[in-house]
Amino acid sequence: MTENRVVRLKSRPATMASRENFDIVDEPVPEPGEGEFLMRADYVSLDPAMRGWIAPGRSYVPPVEIGAVMRGFSAGHVVKSNHPDYREGDAVAGLFGVQRYAVSDGERAVRADTSLAPLEAWIGGLGMPGLTAYFGLLEVGAVKEGDTVVVSAASGAVGSLVGQIAKIKGARAIGIAGGGEKCRYIVDELGFDGAIDYKAQDVSEELKRLCPDRIDVYFENVGGDIMNAVLGHMNTFGRVAVCGLIAHYNATEPPPRLTNLRSILVNRLNVRGFIVFDFAERNAEALTALAAWHSEGRLKFRQDVREGGLDAFPDVLNLLYTGGNFGKLVLKL
Amino acid sequence: MTENRVVRLKSRPATMASRENFDIVDEPVPEPGEGEFLMRADYVSLDPAMRGWIAPGRSYVPPVEIGAVMRGFSAGHVVKSNHPDYREGDAVAGLFGVQRYAVSDGERAVRADTSLAPLEAWIGGLGMPGLTAYFGLLEVGAVKEGDTVVVSAASGAVGSLVGQIAKIKGARAIGIAGGGEKCRYIVDELGFDGAIDYKAQDVSEELKRLCPDRIDVYFENVGGDIMNAVLGHMNTFGRVAVCGLIAHYNATEPPPRLTNLRSILVNRLNVRGFIVFDFAERNAEALTALAAWHSEGRLKFRQDVREGGLDAFPDVLNLLYTGGNFGKLVLKL
Repeated sequence: MTENRVVRLKSRPATMASRENFDIVDEPVPEPGEGEFLMRADYVSLDPAMRGWIAPGRSYVPPVEIGAVMRGFSAGHVVKSNHPDYREGDAVAGLFGVQRYAVSDGERAVRADTSLAPLEAWIGGLGMPGLTAYFGLLEVGAVKEGDTVVVSAASGAVGSLVGQIAKIKGARAIGIAGGGEKCRYIVDELGFDGAIDYKAQDVSEELKRLCPDRIDVYFENVGGDIMNAVLGHMNTFGRVAVCGLIAHYNATEPPPRLTNLRSILVNRLNVRGFIVFDFAERNAEALTALAAWHSEGRLKFRQDVREGGLDAFPDVLNLLYTGGNFGKLVLKL
Repeated sequence: MTENRVVRLKSRPATMASRENFDIVDEPVPEPGEGEFLMRADYVSLDPAMRGWIAPGRSYVPPVEIGAVMRGFSAGHVVKSNHPDYREGDAVAGLFGVQRYAVSDGERAVRADTSLAPLEAWIGGLGMPGLTAYFGLLEVGAVKEGDTVVVSAASGAVGSLVGQIAKIKGARAIGIAGGGEKCRYIVDELGFDGAIDYKAQDVSEELKRLCPDRIDVYFENVGGDIMNAVLGHMNTFGRVAVCGLIAHYNATEPPPRLTNLRSILVNRLNVRGFIVFDFAERNAEALTALAAWHSEGRLKFRQDVREGGLDAFPDVLNLLYTGGNFGKLVLKL
């Protein structure tokens, strides 16, 4: 058996993470204990939340400690098992860390049924991004038929699913994305009702044009100026599901600010932060729905698969914060 | 019968409202039609929301039109009635406008039972401020026994009730107010567990000290820097009831900004704007509870009664935005 390749956190970045913040090293492959299995990852997931996981201070999970394996989801196959529910060769996905081999007790793992979707979808549309879109839109956003839904980072892993699920639920879906290609994609391929290119268009003007009945649900992945623009067009009793704030994660200057607090009051908005782990007990329900919609062709998953192995991890991660990815970003090992 | 004295909106203020923005004139006393009554006001209510009512643009109610009677609550007595439910001499309170005499069809009026509380309390603790505190804390804030509640403008009409209702519900109450006298009042007289003088103390440091288990419910009357400080100390799944944003109402410079969006995400906060009219169908329930607590001595109302008649209205109104009042501000006619 070969060595394990492991990405460990070396230091906390002040702004964007870089190669210097990680030790990427070869280590012995660990041995699974009783009730555990060893998996080998084929795909590692890159998620916007990773920047938060390596920041210091209070957050929804403890920060990754210096010297620890970088937290991350991956998908692969069981290569050795002392676990009653897993056999060698089983496809699995879960929170295995950013490394080639991982030992798991099955706690943060799911069996990846590749007859429903390819292996890498289990860290995408059927993984954390899918669950995030599902609970964020349906529970936090409380979307109803006839609502107008706006989502930022709309061609990304979560945003692309939010718009499609909105359509499935009978709502209108407007996406905000960067660049004409991403905007055409969400309308032409994914069936969004409209798209706004924040790099080329006046977001507020376009929202006014595309949302004549104002906005009932805003699914927030970005923060900053886009959030301020959207708040100005919310409907009475609108819901804002705060899923992510990419614009804030790498800020060294004072972070982007919410200037439109008045809209929260005047429109009686409900602005609610959430993380997918809060709904973990309902994951099975969500995965059943997501897989069904996918198999019916109503929910498309777009992967942005990058090569380069684990050594490319820091550079590929940063694509998420510069708009450099197009679809769910994964690293192929 | 004498003339009616009426405050009409003359122009919209750019910052603070002033005497020039109003026409204060004598007019004939109106005649009640069929199904209407005529009331004469003894007390006119001054509420922070008034600044929003005379601002242009979209809000939760249409702005007061130029030339129209200024919107406002008052309390007084029926002097003539063609209404089946009201007789001459009945004490009433309601949205009668800022004027000495008003005709009403009873729609936005309540009978003021002065055996429960003095007349002026029906535009205070048993009026809009009482209802606002009740629904904002119990429904929007969803306060539970053992919670820590923080309220800004804590010695004001709404804030003083929020803290007392929090105590009645078994929560801890911390108030933020301006000046030592107001701080001592809410602790010594109203039974708050702690007070922070934002004019003399570091709000964030004091919150840390006074809220060792962090903050479960924040009742927001102010906005601006105080809101940013409080957000930094919220507990997981905390609730922020956005009732008012006094710091924003008269701003000519860019309004105070919410810089701590990250707290909404990380702590999965629920930030919700509300206005008291949203809960109008439950007013009877709330008034019953408020009156009972008041009669048991558990809910104290403090009035700040000003003289000077309706001509003093613009100047007295501005006390609300400069921290110049201490308790529920009313104008005695």
